[in-house]
Amino acid sequence: MVLELKVPHGQDLATLKELGPIFLCYILSFANVGIYWNNHHHMFHSVKHVGGWVLWANLHLLFWLSLMPFVTGFLGENGVSTLTVAVYAVDLLMCAVSYTLLVIALLAQHGKDSAFARALGSDLKGKLSLASYVISIPLAFWQPLLSLVFIAGVAAAWIVPDRRFAADSRSDDHAR
Amino acid sequence: MVLELKVPHGQDLATLKELGPIFLCYILSFANVGIYWNNHHHMFHSVKHVGGWVLWANLHLLFWLSLMPFVTGFLGENGVSTLTVAVYAVDLLMCAVSYTLLVIALLAQHGKDSAFARALGSDLKGKLSLASYVISIPLAFWQPLLSLVFIAGVAAAWIVPDRRFAADSRSDDHAR
Amino acid sequence: MVLELKVPHGQDLATLKELGPIFLCYILSFANVGIYWNNHHHMFHSVKHVGGWVLWANLHLLFWLSLMPFVTGFLGENGVSTLTVAVYAVDLLMCAVSYTLLVIALLAQHGKDSAFARALGSDLKGKLSLASYVISIPLAFWQPLLSLVFIAGVAAAWIVPDRRFAADSRSDDHAR
Amino acid sequence: MVLELKVPHGQDLATLKELGPIFLCYILSFANVGIYWNNHHHMFHSVKHVGGWVLWANLHLLFWLSLMPFVTGFLGENGVSTLTVAVYAVDLLMCAVSYTLLVIALLAQHGKDSAFARALGSDLKGKLSLASYVISIPLAFWQPLLSLVFIAGVAAAWIVPDRRFAADSRSDDHAR
Repeated sequence: MVLELKVPHGQDLATLKELGPIFLCYILSFANVGIYWNNHHHMFHSVKHVGGWVLWANLHLLFWLSLMPFVTGFLGENGVSTLTVAVYAVDLLMCAVSYTLLVIALLAQHGKDSAFARALGSDLKGKLSLASYVISIPLAFWQPLLSLVFIAGVAAAWIVPDRRFAADSRSDDHAR
Repeated sequence: MVLELKVPHGQDLATLKELGPIFLCYILSFANVGIYWNNHHHMFHSVKHVGGWVLWANLHLLFWLSLMPFVTGFLGENGVSTLTVAVYAVDLLMCAVSYTLLVIALLAQHGKDSAFARALGSDLKGKLSLASYVISIPLAFWQPLLSLVFIAGVAAAWIVPDRRFAADSRSDDHAR
Repeated sequence: MVLELKVPHGQDLATLKELGPIFLCYILSFANVGIYWNNHHHMFHSVKHVGGWVLWANLHLLFWLSLMPFVTGFLGENGVSTLTVAVYAVDLLMCAVSYTLLVIALLAQHGKDSAFARALGSDLKGKLSLASYVISIPLAFWQPLLSLVFIAGVAAAWIVPDRRFAADSRSDDHAR
Repeated sequence: MVLELKVPHGQDLATLKELGPIFLCYILSFANVGIYWNNHHHMFHSVKHVGGWVLWANLHLLFWLSLMPFVTGFLGENGVSTLTVAVYAVDLLMCAVSYTLLVIALLAQHGKDSAFARALGSDLKGKLSLASYVISIPLAFWQPLLSLVFIAGVAAAWIVPDRRFAADSRSDDHAR
């Protein structure tokens, strides 16, 4: 899950300015991958046991996250257009869908009355993100830049940490 | 073990369509690496101790898995042909062979009456996969595309999780 | 966080000599990333619990560390100039700032009288590093090479391990 | 520590044959990195505590291991010559030197009568490897290919697992 920035050749400021758009994409993608990483980490701390389907749901989420460097590069190197923003939004949507499926698989294993289900709560933010990504795709066909700003807004909303699972996490997990 | 997709330049749909074949290869390889990852994870949870040969058997498996990005790129960038599919099938065969050797090394350490041996069972799916990859190589010389579809079928059969070891796994292992 | 060295083509010593500057940058960046890695590892061993803000502070640090391969390549491939050294110094400054923010977030959670706060002490070396990077940026506009030597000096000062947290670390954490 | 193989373009056997030399280098480097990985893993299982110098000795080893993809590519893409083999041998020598320094740092912490010191024994194989790499460098100036074969022989000697630490390792460490 390594995002990559190509090294430009040149020693003047203009060289660096050209990197502006791809750098902004890099920040946005880094934030999104980081949000999943943190929430994923938090969520699995409330988890008591993992069965086979959870592993596959997890792998499914990893698949869409693994495409982030590709869609980031596609957007950053080709610039903001309907196609590049739509592809970016589709990948984020699929990340959100696969995360939701992972939550469902975990809920199925733990039961509706489990500590995990109580810790999860209504998952309003997750549902709103899912809806936002669905909206951002047609929006990219009308106003690609607005769609991208909208996507960045969703990421910003997630920067406020998800308190539901935070209490369960212990220090040693984050030391690496 | 990072699979890579090169970023294309262009803003029309045709640019993306050209990526179709390599994207399908990417999915197939991601699934295969994921299958090994999951099963490997499951298996080592039933393992009580690891001796020197197990480490080397493990490294041997890692070697063939580490070639997956190469054989995926070779297939995806050059298209379906006898050579590209055969190379892909040979790597998958060697992954299956080295996984089998790892199982044998673990069995030798634990003994035939151990909990590990009982958890492993007859390993029918492993043996069938091995046989399938052996068949897919000559098949690539006759019908490369059919061979590839056959290989994809083996991966699909593995998506159903291996229940033998699933009961032993605990939540914290999958949290990272 | 992988630093990369491009493989040159040629079989004479001159080919290798051309790599000299980028190799020195590689060493400097490897040392800097290693310093953060070691200190980060040490610090989290004194940590009792992690809340949401610590995770984001951690991600923030990771963001600036993830830019190290880029700023290293920019400096190494374009040579020592005001722009390349200033960009390198800015990234190191931001790493130091985000590390300081991480320490502040951890202090806020543990309290001023906690074992963590006592273990941290006055963090004089951290504050001096921060000040050094602030100085190195304008220095790059006057004497880029001197600025780089100054930056290397800060790294050298860190090679002496930070004894504050060392006593808390246990062997198994460093085995991977 | 990812070794890389570039994907060739072409669908005939000749394309693959050209990859022969670099593939052999890849195998040799994979084996060497794997040997360090396994022995390192084994050794740290006998370790009771880690102080600051051990961390830096560890980082030093990591530095030379991180150059393996570079020296492998340099050898594989430019072919067997005095320069390419000598560079490869120097990196392996520095890996062996830094591993020895790591052992010395660990011995200094544990004392000559510790369980660690007893488990380590005389480390004859480590000393012989060190001597072999010293010999392989001048050998590369006389007979580069012979030097490379000699280096491969050292790796082969290590494939027999180091029994000293094997008994201490437990299953869960190797599960990832």
